[in-house]
Amino acid sequence: MSAETPTAVANAGPLAVVCGGGSLPVEVARAAQRQGRRVVLLALRGSADPHFVAAFPHHWVGLGQFGHACRHARAEGCRDIVMIGSLVRPHVRDLRLDFFTLRMLPRVIRAFQSGDDHLLSSIAKMFEEQGFRVLGAHEVAPEILMPHGALGSRQPSEIDRRDIQRGFALLRATGPFDVGQAVIVSDNRVLAIEAADGTDLMLERLAELRGQGRVQARQGGGVLVKAPKPMQDRRIDLPSVGPRTVEGVARAGLAGIAVAAGSAIVAEPGRIAAVADRAHVFVVGVAADGPPS
Amino acid sequence: MSAETPTAVANAGPLAVVCGGGSLPVEVARAAQRQGRRVVLLALRGSADPHFVAAFPHHWVGLGQFGHACRHARAEGCRDIVMIGSLVRPHVRDLRLDFFTLRMLPRVIRAFQSGDDHLLSSIAKMFEEQGFRVLGAHEVAPEILMPHGALGSRQPSEIDRRDIQRGFALLRATGPFDVGQAVIVSDNRVLAIEAADGTDLMLERLAELRGQGRVQARQGGGVLVKAPKPMQDRRIDLPSVGPRTVEGVARAGLAGIAVAAGSAIVAEPGRIAAVADRAHVFVVGVAADGPPS
Repeated sequence: MSAETPTAVANAGPLAVVCGGGSLPVEVARAAQRQGRRVVLLALRGSADPHFVAAFPHHWVGLGQFGHACRHARAEGCRDIVMIGSLVRPHVRDLRLDFFTLRMLPRVIRAFQSGDDHLLSSIAKMFEEQGFRVLGAHEVAPEILMPHGALGSRQPSEIDRRDIQRGFALLRATGPFDVGQAVIVSDNRVLAIEAADGTDLMLERLAELRGQGRVQARQGGGVLVKAPKPMQDRRIDLPSVGPRTVEGVARAGLAGIAVAAGSAIVAEPGRIAAVADRAHVFVVGVAADGPPS
Repeated sequence: MSAETPTAVANAGPLAVVCGGGSLPVEVARAAQRQGRRVVLLALRGSADPHFVAAFPHHWVGLGQFGHACRHARAEGCRDIVMIGSLVRPHVRDLRLDFFTLRMLPRVIRAFQSGDDHLLSSIAKMFEEQGFRVLGAHEVAPEILMPHGALGSRQPSEIDRRDIQRGFALLRATGPFDVGQAVIVSDNRVLAIEAADGTDLMLERLAELRGQGRVQARQGGGVLVKAPKPMQDRRIDLPSVGPRTVEGVARAGLAGIAVAAGSAIVAEPGRIAAVADRAHVFVVGVAADGPPS
């Protein structure tokens, strides 16, 4: 098929990228290409961006079409699979299940109704049972991991740093419950904990409540803190930050974003830095492995 | 002053009830009267219901008027103080601080910006420093505590009971962070964790997100679980459930409400049972002291 660099990707062969929403899947696909791998996108209908998808060899699949996805990956000669990008969680009745998925229905439904972790790790397991190898996006594209330090020119204050440590400690406490990967802490007070809503909606909501005067907190204070759950399968669900997260944080009147360095994914770090500087917020990678509080 | 029953309330004297919103303050005031105590309301402007307040001897005070509150309580001969009812957290600029509160301003601001626990326990401490005794509402009116078992005719299912235990375990984990006292768990998945928003807004929000298809969960499944924080000063901030909570739970499409029996306050249990039966939801008091998970 494609010309490969045998030293860099010995025996790796082409890579299938199961591709959700946002710009991350493209970053990952490009990074894999830079390493000389052929990349095929399995673009999730309703989630993946058609504009990005068109730039690569690709096949569109529905969320309930696990069998189709496997067939496409095999036909393209891919043994390795990466799953990346945001998922629009559809209503069960909107799933157009293929035959294979129908056969696994009880298992899919169980996965679907529990936390995101279960849903994604069930799908990873199903791919593995079909003979594929599921890799983390950061394994094929280490450059997407959040580095230590600030992305833009702003730095967190002393108060911000205390809020950040409190946020990491709270995330360690909620981790075993398969809840979200983000909290908002302002002047040592927990303003919000992500659950089924997700980071963007949580930020939107806080902006709304502050606008209505229903949540009081110092304007320009407070940090969005993101870290992976302690037990998380890092191949499939690392927390991520993008320009949209920065905009949400600015609208919510917060000081900045802190992310577990090396264990979170950053889409478009250059653009993030620019957006952060323009919005006067910081975006910083911090070692999250402090002593448990 | 008033005729007291010396056996029931020996040396207790009249009781000052610092009175926030909702029907709870009146329940507490009535219960104290039934025990033969004279009751004076210190009604919080912007929070207390004028209709309820009018039925008792009362004085209106602003949230920033701690000095006025103390003066009124002393003039009425009250040594005991109970704080009860919901607080509308005002913007700092809307506080009309009296002289005494102004002197304590740094402390008040610090309390105001940290969690609810700190705010309320700071105020309790300030009352105590002024020579008052701060009692829990359930100490003067034990009948307001949530009993074991269901209030209406509905009972939780086996799945609901598992969700309830998961909810209590999660609340034990978040407790040290002075976060909210409520979570929503559905089919073992955590849908929401209360933080600065409060229970009513959290329920409203979930109803909204479900209506928009942004949170998927089984209709008629899921439980609102409420329990006090582990370190909480139970005199000042027990979680509470009222008819409004039941209505919110029904609108959010959940199965019911579980409350830590004996450590939560129930306003109008009779009305709650009626509202719950009409809305087909359960309201149940459960021992929350399971083994830590």
